[in-house]
Amino acid sequence: MTFEFDRDTAVRPVGNGRYDADLGTGWVVGGGVNGGYLLGIIGNAVRAELGLQAPTKGHVDPFSVSAHFLSAAVAGPAYVETRVLRSGGRFSTIEATLVQDVAGVPVPRIASHATFGDLDALDATRDAEAEQLGLVLKAPELAPVEDCLLASDAPPDFKKIAPLLDRFGTRLDPASALWAVGQPSRQGVIQGWFKLADDRPLDPIALLMVVDALPPVTFDLGWPGWAPTLELTAHVRAKPAPGWVIVRHRTRTVAGGLFEEDCEVWDSTGRLVAQSRQLALQPRS
Amino acid sequence: MTFEFDRDTAVRPVGNGRYDADLGTGWVVGGGVNGGYLLGIIGNAVRAELGLQAPTKGHVDPFSVSAHFLSAAVAGPAYVETRVLRSGGRFSTIEATLVQDVAGVPVPRIASHATFGDLDALDATRDAEAEQLGLVLKAPELAPVEDCLLASDAPPDFKKIAPLLDRFGTRLDPASALWAVGQPSRQGVIQGWFKLADDRPLDPIALLMVVDALPPVTFDLGWPGWAPTLELTAHVRAKPAPGWVIVRHRTRTVAGGLFEEDCEVWDSTGRLVAQSRQLALQPRS
Repeated sequence: MTFEFDRDTAVRPVGNGRYDADLGTGWVVGGGVNGGYLLGIIGNAVRAELGLQAPTKGHVDPFSVSAHFLSAAVAGPAYVETRVLRSGGRFSTIEATLVQDVAGVPVPRIASHATFGDLDALDATRDAEAEQLGLVLKAPELAPVEDCLLASDAPPDFKKIAPLLDRFGTRLDPASALWAVGQPSRQGVIQGWFKLADDRPLDPIALLMVVDALPPVTFDLGWPGWAPTLELTAHVRAKPAPGWVIVRHRTRTVAGGLFEEDCEVWDSTGRLVAQSRQLALQPRS
Repeated sequence: MTFEFDRDTAVRPVGNGRYDADLGTGWVVGGGVNGGYLLGIIGNAVRAELGLQAPTKGHVDPFSVSAHFLSAAVAGPAYVETRVLRSGGRFSTIEATLVQDVAGVPVPRIASHATFGDLDALDATRDAEAEQLGLVLKAPELAPVEDCLLASDAPPDFKKIAPLLDRFGTRLDPASALWAVGQPSRQGVIQGWFKLADDRPLDPIALLMVVDALPPVTFDLGWPGWAPTLELTAHVRAKPAPGWVIVRHRTRTVAGGLFEEDCEVWDSTGRLVAQSRQLALQPRS
């Protein structure tokens, strides 16, 4: 069996650092293709390019990926152009641009830089000390999975514009899901349990998708509509253990027509495995 | 009078999107040149390149700059290579790489993407509502400026390796400066008042420097030494009002040999004007 995420983020090397991909219709949400899913494709292209030769070969995991969103991608053919900027030592850094040809003209969708390394080589020397100091961010307390709201149970009208929901097994914590029934908490928080619908295990590349998988936190402010991301940076801090992850999205500063959205992801052992921040435009509605 | 920051971040166009610069010896700290200062140079090159023609000409302010640090820069000649990736609409995005030639070989120091726009065109429609919801991050309470510790009063031995300190008028809040006398609070917080030593007013480009101007938060954990940045993303949220700014650095997750450091900057009116996050390596010492 091939999992949806693997099938739809597969890349094909065509030489000179270019990787072809097909953006699946299943990852569409509103007028575009989900940004996290696109980061998964970029992650696969980067990993493939770094895997071609020593000394970058051992740098298989994303540590930090920063992405500027230039235009909305559409389902269909796309490609990632990669260029290694640094190799050797513990990390490689690569430039990766996701492009779609529109009427024969290459249109960049996402410009990114990615720093990759080996998450199996993390240095745990000071972990116990940091834990004792309280410098390890803890997951929020959520209602049990079975009491949370299955996001893919959204009304058919909504799902028609968001086939993306069927890819995910997202279970939203009721306290931060009341916007779905017209009673947003207005705390600026959306959190819940997350897995892929077909139970594809989450790994470091998939975490690049997880940090952009929940609805924008502006839904919880009572502002539905698309909140276009200007920039998103994701840091992967550890390999996730098997099972559900907990995801929290939060904004703390809504100003000037923009807002920042911080996301944290904890694995089933309670370990922080990824964090991201995006700067996005407030929805127009 | 020319201010130090303007003199030392000046760039000279040499065509094809390239801008020459000189990295000043005054901005050296430890074995390298301060990253925030280098972001100021990158910011000036980006602004100059965008200013060359419509439609990017009005995009004079950084909204989001993400930077991957590839190798340690040294004082001396450097250049920024720029390439516009998106123009038109409300924002321009540009790729900008800071390079130094070493024995005739170009060595990239920082790979960045910058999204610029016009901070005078922010949409304040929902600002009052967000304020009412408490979704505007507030500055910490600090001791008055005169009761804070002037960082440039550090011992001569320390200053010899950190001429950078003389560029700044940083006044550290006593509660987060006790590491200087061997009693780190171990809260993972360093905060204080900030201005440039020669009172050069802070503007959006200078804020790119401010987010990396305080000592690394690991000093407050009792871990002196250089904490190499892998990646730093800065978001400028508003133009700062004249006067001192308040800067807070904080880490919340120290793990696996790395830590993230969040920085927020508030202007003299209490408005959040910039925020950044960097992923850095723990010092070796």
